Amino acid sequence: MIIAGIMSGTSLDGIDVAIVEITGEGWNKKVTTLAHYTTPYSQAVRGALLAVSNAGTHTAQIGLLHFLLPELYAKAVRGLCLKAGIPLRSLQLVGCHGQTILHIADPTRFLGYRLNCTLQIGDGSVLAERLSVPVVSDFRPRDMASGGQGAPLVPYVDYLLLRHRKRGRVALNIGGIANLTAIPPSSPPSKVIAFDTGPGNMVMDQLVSLHTRGSRRYDRDGVIARRGKISRWLLRILLRDPFFRKQPPKSAGREEYGEEFVEHLVSTRLPMEDLVATAGALTASTIALGIRRHVMPVMPVHDLVVSGGGVHNRFVLNLLASELPNVSIHSSAEFGADPDAKEAIAFAVLAYETWHGRPSNLPSATGASHPLVLGKISPGPPAGNRRPNKRKADS
Amino acid sequence: MIIAGIMSGTSLDGIDVAIVEITGEGWNKKVTTLAHYTTPYSQAVRGALLAVSNAGTHTAQIGLLHFLLPELYAKAVRGLCLKAGIPLRSLQLVGCHGQTILHIADPTRFLGYRLNCTLQIGDGSVLAERLSVPVVSDFRPRDMASGGQGAPLVPYVDYLLLRHRKRGRVALNIGGIANLTAIPPSSPPSKVIAFDTGPGNMVMDQLVSLHTRGSRRYDRDGVIARRGKISRWLLRILLRDPFFRKQPPKSAGREEYGEEFVEHLVSTRLPMEDLVATAGALTASTIALGIRRHVMPVMPVHDLVVSGGGVHNRFVLNLLASELPNVSIHSSAEFGADPDAKEAIAFAVLAYETWHGRPSNLPSATGASHPLVLGKISPGPPAGNRRPNKRKADS
Repeated sequence: MIIAGIMSGTSLDGIDVAIVEITGEGWNKKVTTLAHYTTPYSQAVRGALLAVSNAGTHTAQIGLLHFLLPELYAKAVRGLCLKAGIPLRSLQLVGCHGQTILHIADPTRFLGYRLNCTLQIGDGSVLAERLSVPVVSDFRPRDMASGGQGAPLVPYVDYLLLRHRKRGRVALNIGGIANLTAIPPSSPPSKVIAFDTGPGNMVMDQLVSLHTRGSRRYDRDGVIARRGKISRWLLRILLRDPFFRKQPPKSAGREEYGEEFVEHLVSTRLPMEDLVATAGALTASTIALGIRRHVMPVMPVHDLVVSGGGVHNRFVLNLLASELPNVSIHSSAEFGADPDAKEAIAFAVLAYETWHGRPSNLPSATGASHPLVLGKISPGPPAGNRRPNKRKADS
Repeated sequence: MIIAGIMSGTSLDGIDVAIVEITGEGWNKKVTTLAHYTTPYSQAVRGALLAVSNAGTHTAQIGLLHFLLPELYAKAVRGLCLKAGIPLRSLQLVGCHGQTILHIADPTRFLGYRLNCTLQIGDGSVLAERLSVPVVSDFRPRDMASGGQGAPLVPYVDYLLLRHRKRGRVALNIGGIANLTAIPPSSPPSKVIAFDTGPGNMVMDQLVSLHTRGSRRYDRDGVIARRGKISRWLLRILLRDPFFRKQPPKSAGREEYGEEFVEHLVSTRLPMEDLVATAGALTASTIALGIRRHVMPVMPVHDLVVSGGGVHNRFVLNLLASELPNVSIHSSAEFGADPDAKEAIAFAVLAYETWHGRPSNLPSATGASHPLVLGKISPGPPAGNRRPNKRKADS
């Protein structure tokens, strides 16, 4: 089956599309990436998404973005198909994460009820109509309905791709937030540990954007951080946050490392390079802390397999290597998943499982009470009318 | 197949649940209502829904309501099953309309795109998990993605229930907004005409609520209106709105007849009974106008089949009868659909079609470019695990 996975993460940098082919059965299925590409969001879309994310806004802004995103997603998928020479009509399914604008993982009081909730916008029906293909979208609510945190969902795919008979492996994704999946050697999926370690790139990215007045959005190769000096006292204060010591499962929201957090850093009046370096150290230290505190006590860690934008930040990776001296650090590319496409690949795989009626959350990772068939299926065209707007879609 | 349909309309009065059994094939399928019941929203939920409907709000309010509604829906379904002696486990599918908080039917400019959009909250995944049954939800976006207005969707079901070889029939639903479906004798579904005629009960309801300081929410049996006198000059002004003359398909939003509209009426300083009577006359006149202007020129109208809360307002029905002297007026109950449950029944039928991969919009009614399989399917429990939380759900 040929499937497109679409991921647009909390870093708001753009739309990652991966087109994969899945063959085989059960845990032995094979996932081959045929093509992948990231389409950046325009400044206007990025700004509009930021404005509605866990903020006061008008419903119309949310509604319009909910319908705009699938247009952009469809364009991204069509563009990648064209570029990679994959006929659009060979696509059989799309898995679309959508854009998270709210995530309340721990139940809160509301009108006399205790509720968690999450909002991913980017309507699956509109996308299914544009691409003339069934779409699975909105993966997180089902897990949350069963007492889970709705995240992380990628561990299922990490387990599929990385499990090993003798080696203990940790899959680390450094996106806006950093999260990891720890897979003990020859263990069933129920033994997988997964959690957010804390900030990934988002604090660094915001500082760089501020520092360069918006002309750069991230610290390419860690160049700025390497010019700076880590502020030990500031780092010590930041590491005091009890989140880093909390037992998994746990998930961190972008709101915790947003504007307010960055303003707090800037108010120290440290040089901007030092702040970027300190933010990079915070990312590396909290990842290492998470591994030492929550993973190493229960399994050996032989390999750290890194994906996400952070894989390109040598400053952070060097710090990680020095904090975890006996761990071999790899790019996820060595395991068949390009580090820039891994999450998009994952949502193609999750869509595949839902399409076949199979559960794909790992309760050990999300805290859900049982395995669940995730997401909502927007059907393709009616039978006998597989491509009603083929010409339009292909043009 | 035994299916629950759940409708919560723009009138915000509560949750209508109907449990139906569907047998047979194609246009000859038979829909039998096994039970139905309306659970009113609490004042708090009603207020919160009003506050987020096409208004400035915080995403968290929307997100929490999105997850609260399925809890209320599940409770309503469970309660009805218990009361009617229908075992919850006999339910095979649920069709859930959700609560509309935004509907922009005509494309508007947004970030350089021309977009329509709609937002129905009440998450289908949460509902599927609570009831351990697959749910079809979010019916409108797919139609809008294909150039339709996303409404009305009930005409498909009207056609199924009411079409006749010799009689021209109009199905009229008087909810918050009034809408009709006109079915010419022995005609295919493509000949069906459907549109919103204008306000249904919502203007009257708001006036009554104001008049009684919230102690009543609607004019039971038209008692208040019958004490008043219709203001002819005010009615004439109200009827000038070009919407009433616009060619179908057309849909009216609750925002057009909201607080502002009612304030405008109150500012005339007419006695409140006269205002309620005039609002009732506006409803009846615009329905009659719609039928005379857009239906009678193209088909004979023998029967007017009324459903929705307005069926209980004798004041409006009497006015209608005098404005349409040669039309026989019926309650939809005579055609097997209780007038208070018809829309809930309709969403059970629409869910059934989606579940079987069949389109269920009528492009002649919505303006969509082609027939579409509507909605999103939230799968039931994984195979072999049909009722994971049976005990909990049944308790």
